[in-house]
Amino acid sequence: MNVVIIGMGTAGYAAAMEAAKRGAHLTVIEKRDFDTFSPCGLPYVIDESIPSFEDLKHSIRLRNTEKLLSHTVESIDTKKKTVKACDCVSGDCRTISYDRLIIATGTSPVIPPIKGARELLGKGTFVVSGIDDTGQLKKKADVSHSCVVIGAGAIGLETACTLHNRGLEVTVVEMLPQVFPQAIDEDMASDVKNHLEDSGIPVVVNARVESITQEGGVLITADREYAADFAVIAAGVRANVALAEKAGITMGTWGIKVNPKMKTSAPDVYACGDCIETFSYINGEPWMMQLATSALQMGQIAAINAMGGSAAYQGCLNTFASELEGKEIASCGFTEAQASRFGYDIAVGKGSGRVTADYYPGEETVKVKLIVDKKDHHLLGGQAFGVGAFWRVNVISLALKARMTVDEFSTMELAYTPPLSTSHDALHSACDFALRRL
Amino acid sequence: MNVVIIGMGTAGYAAAMEAAKRGAHLTVIEKRDFDTFSPCGLPYVIDESIPSFEDLKHSIRLRNTEKLLSHTVESIDTKKKTVKACDCVSGDCRTISYDRLIIATGTSPVIPPIKGARELLGKGTFVVSGIDDTGQLKKKADVSHSCVVIGAGAIGLETACTLHNRGLEVTVVEMLPQVFPQAIDEDMASDVKNHLEDSGIPVVVNARVESITQEGGVLITADREYAADFAVIAAGVRANVALAEKAGITMGTWGIKVNPKMKTSAPDVYACGDCIETFSYINGEPWMMQLATSALQMGQIAAINAMGGSAAYQGCLNTFASELEGKEIASCGFTEAQASRFGYDIAVGKGSGRVTADYYPGEETVKVKLIVDKKDHHLLGGQAFGVGAFWRVNVISLALKARMTVDEFSTMELAYTPPLSTSHDALHSACDFALRRL
Repeated sequence: MNVVIIGMGTAGYAAAMEAAKRGAHLTVIEKRDFDTFSPCGLPYVIDESIPSFEDLKHSIRLRNTEKLLSHTVESIDTKKKTVKACDCVSGDCRTISYDRLIIATGTSPVIPPIKGARELLGKGTFVVSGIDDTGQLKKKADVSHSCVVIGAGAIGLETACTLHNRGLEVTVVEMLPQVFPQAIDEDMASDVKNHLEDSGIPVVVNARVESITQEGGVLITADREYAADFAVIAAGVRANVALAEKAGITMGTWGIKVNPKMKTSAPDVYACGDCIETFSYINGEPWMMQLATSALQMGQIAAINAMGGSAAYQGCLNTFASELEGKEIASCGFTEAQASRFGYDIAVGKGSGRVTADYYPGEETVKVKLIVDKKDHHLLGGQAFGVGAFWRVNVISLALKARMTVDEFSTMELAYTPPLSTSHDALHSACDFALRRL
Repeated sequence: MNVVIIGMGTAGYAAAMEAAKRGAHLTVIEKRDFDTFSPCGLPYVIDESIPSFEDLKHSIRLRNTEKLLSHTVESIDTKKKTVKACDCVSGDCRTISYDRLIIATGTSPVIPPIKGARELLGKGTFVVSGIDDTGQLKKKADVSHSCVVIGAGAIGLETACTLHNRGLEVTVVEMLPQVFPQAIDEDMASDVKNHLEDSGIPVVVNARVESITQEGGVLITADREYAADFAVIAAGVRANVALAEKAGITMGTWGIKVNPKMKTSAPDVYACGDCIETFSYINGEPWMMQLATSALQMGQIAAINAMGGSAAYQGCLNTFASELEGKEIASCGFTEAQASRFGYDIAVGKGSGRVTADYYPGEETVKVKLIVDKKDHHLLGGQAFGVGAFWRVNVISLALKARMTVDEFSTMELAYTPPLSTSHDALHSACDFALRRL
């Protein structure tokens, strides 16, 4: 079986591994001049928590596999079942036949319509998307004292923290009223913002950047002016769908439309990873999600089905985490805002608590928020902030997976040992709170 | 409603809080001269991680409550519905009537039939059970250089570590072939043993202590002789059931027999906490469990039912954790050995992994073990060792609570961020391994 995979990001990589394991004759087409890398690690190279960009690169050795690096796909002919792949350097093109095609074209960073943003790319404005662009940013940081990060999502804030750790003066400017606008609610976001500011990183919300001009450094104009040596643009990503769209493949609101087997509207064409529109595990509705963990799972599922096996994606829970200046922010499922948008009548439970026993020294605390369906008490989502937020959200994510009610969830039996926990965790307190509101 | 509670340990405390909230006229009888304390914290006072024993004490203020401290209950008359309580100091006794009685008499440390062990208590041998006896141990440690800990359960090993942290030479001697014989299997136990020995704490297993003699310090005779300044006896605990037994209340194998409402065989008499025989959430079979978390839950349930409400205990999962020399050991549900004893045909899955992304600096790893019912793929138990073992077992514990199969569990969606996790956690690897064996 001839399987062609377009793109060797996380999903394409997982698909290639699985397809090769199942005996495919593989052609992998990737526009980079190396196989693949771990994009989630990019911010951590900036302050050399990860010593080198080379550490993020992975090379893949697979049987019966032709790798076309530095190649782009110009077009897909879904009737003839071919793709036209061209060498980025020589410009030479060739037509490759497939029995099955897997599209894993990923995303591109959004450059918002800010005057000067695109023009100054690589000079005064930088993105954290690949190794090349983040490398440029790092070089600029080496000779700079200050910067403004535009956008307060995970990439923006993680980059702000690593730049700050390097000793730069960093200001974050976010257009929306809160940090992590996709992942958490405004109340939790306000805790994160306060923590960042306490750590020396001012965060300005509700501030739309109008223009970036370069005079020595950059001058960023929003409601007020920010002078800095450079700007990081971290305004989110957009699914790379142009190629699929041109081939007549059906689109969803956020990306390529697929069914749970990762099949697109075209015969024998699959798509997976950040370029698709996914759906929620909770209610099956179309949803957006661009996380490495799900990309791995979807890539594998696409390859299993492409190779004649059978696997179905159950939908995503958007289980997400980020560590910022020593504290964790994490979330899963629907935020309060998203749940309301989906029409749920919700109750919210919040709990805060220590992360060691009351009588055990330590000042660290964690806050947990649960979102519950008032009608049938099912959990719809959870968020946590503080030390240990990461694993508490993993626990909530599993409760969502098991479709538990908050009544059931409240009887969870957590381990207790004084250096690591209290006998009544913030998770329990959040349940108690939610139950009183039902 | 007159409610009498015997014992103000964790369960008695929880029962008192709940009963008072529900308007009881309470009499609480406690043999200590203070209300209650947190026994799990005792080892950590020895090396002053917790500065003082006073930090472990809690005083309780409740409405309509008579506290009889320094009192013991001599007898219960379940027909007349009275208890006879005597002042430990004056010897004066009185008869107290109850509408409902809650027995929460806890446990006592087992002193094994070792020659000299009991005779030398407080002089050359010490237990970690209450504030007084642990206080004696701490004073002895102040003037000592070496000790032997007899028993490699949680109390024994946590105490060994805190004594070691104070600079004492510590040897652990365990009669059974492994550490944590109740909580984990031999394979995981061997990792814990190696870790302790790498940290400078020799652990001798399969060694039955025969005698302890005092000549300056103590001389402990097992297969070979151990000279030390003192010995800690940490050979487990036994439910305090004599009082209930004398009153004709039905016993189980491990403690007072109760139904899920915490009712004993006697009318209007409830029992809760470490003095009862509990049952497994997994298969409903009688089981032993002496954990603070469940004691809190059972105390509350006993009081709710005693006060005319309705609550039922669902059974325990024995979710347990201990931190030893910077690593966590944790477990829940059945061990391999226990599952086999209950007649399950089991498959085991083990996975090891890093606790940060592959490309993120850090050497810490964690090992996870899952025990699965071969017949229907349901999870039966889990164990973990290493950094982050604690929360991984909490995740498994929730999967047990949700009665998940390993197939379902394997689709869990964990958060991923390079400083805190890998994209394929040891939990996933353990699932993969188990699934291949089904």
